[in-house]
Amino acid sequence: MAAESVITPEALLEHWQGHRRLTRRVIEAFPEDQLFKFSVGSMRPFGLMATEMVSMAAAGIQGLATGKWASVAELVHHSNAQAPATREEILRLWDETTEQIDVLWPQIRPGRFQEIDTAFGEYRGPVYGFVLYWIDNEIHHRGQGYVYLRALGIEPPPFYERN
Amino acid sequence: MAAESVITPEALLEHWQGHRRLTRRVIEAFPEDQLFKFSVGSMRPFGLMATEMVSMAAAGIQGLATGKWASVAELVHHSNAQAPATREEILRLWDETTEQIDVLWPQIRPGRFQEIDTAFGEYRGPVYGFVLYWIDNEIHHRGQGYVYLRALGIEPPPFYERN
Repeated sequence: MAAESVITPEALLEHWQGHRRLTRRVIEAFPEDQLFKFSVGSMRPFGLMATEMVSMAAAGIQGLATGKWASVAELVHHSNAQAPATREEILRLWDETTEQIDVLWPQIRPGRFQEIDTAFGEYRGPVYGFVLYWIDNEIHHRGQGYVYLRALGIEPPPFYERN
Repeated sequence: MAAESVITPEALLEHWQGHRRLTRRVIEAFPEDQLFKFSVGSMRPFGLMATEMVSMAAAGIQGLATGKWASVAELVHHSNAQAPATREEILRLWDETTEQIDVLWPQIRPGRFQEIDTAFGEYRGPVYGFVLYWIDNEIHHRGQGYVYLRALGIEPPPFYERN
């Protein structure tokens, strides 16, 4: 008997993309001249956090669908080499990745989420845990982006809106 | 045929409690005199955010297990009336709720996560979505707590550690 399902693959995709839609609005809310500059407590500017999120998502969906993972070194190298420098560039990369996720998600084979794999050649665990981790990491840093926006006197987009 | 399971109820419980263990460490990391005082960008101090998290979790697990939901007004009233004023009090409340979640979770009946319900008399949607929302809300505000800690010159606990 199959274990009880708390969340289906389709619902998890929608959950992930809903969070990514909200994060996109947070990127858009930053003034162009602060996205890669403003910071609190010597932390990274939000533009660098968003670059990390989009690199992880783009390489991650490949790993989910194909079982082939970029290494952490490749991920860092790729993310440095292709690092967006403007809000427009990061939004373009964001949208490309959104499309890629929608295309590749249905190719994830049945049972894949319960497999044990090694993400990016380093992180061993169940495949569903990788997706949850990427989402959690995005929420975590986006929450930090909310503080940056508030400190800049800007009202962030509502947290509960995911459309 | 049951829909494919991405995550089992047991794994979701562990995921939630893992996040709650990390948040507990973030509460502990705040200096006693800053937990209910320090803020960036006119946001709430972390002690109030943590009070919201623990109220939502305590009332939420009741709703999951029994189908009886406190109203939002009751939630706010209860959370104001019983609002912890010290780090010790909030940690005590946190630990009581941790235990309550562990006791009530196995009483959630099969199929419950896919039901449509109205959390706290206001939020209509699938039950799994409520749990994800409480976790997301906790990660979101905890990420903000990380910024507060950094701004106070304190190194936050590692994000990936959930034990």
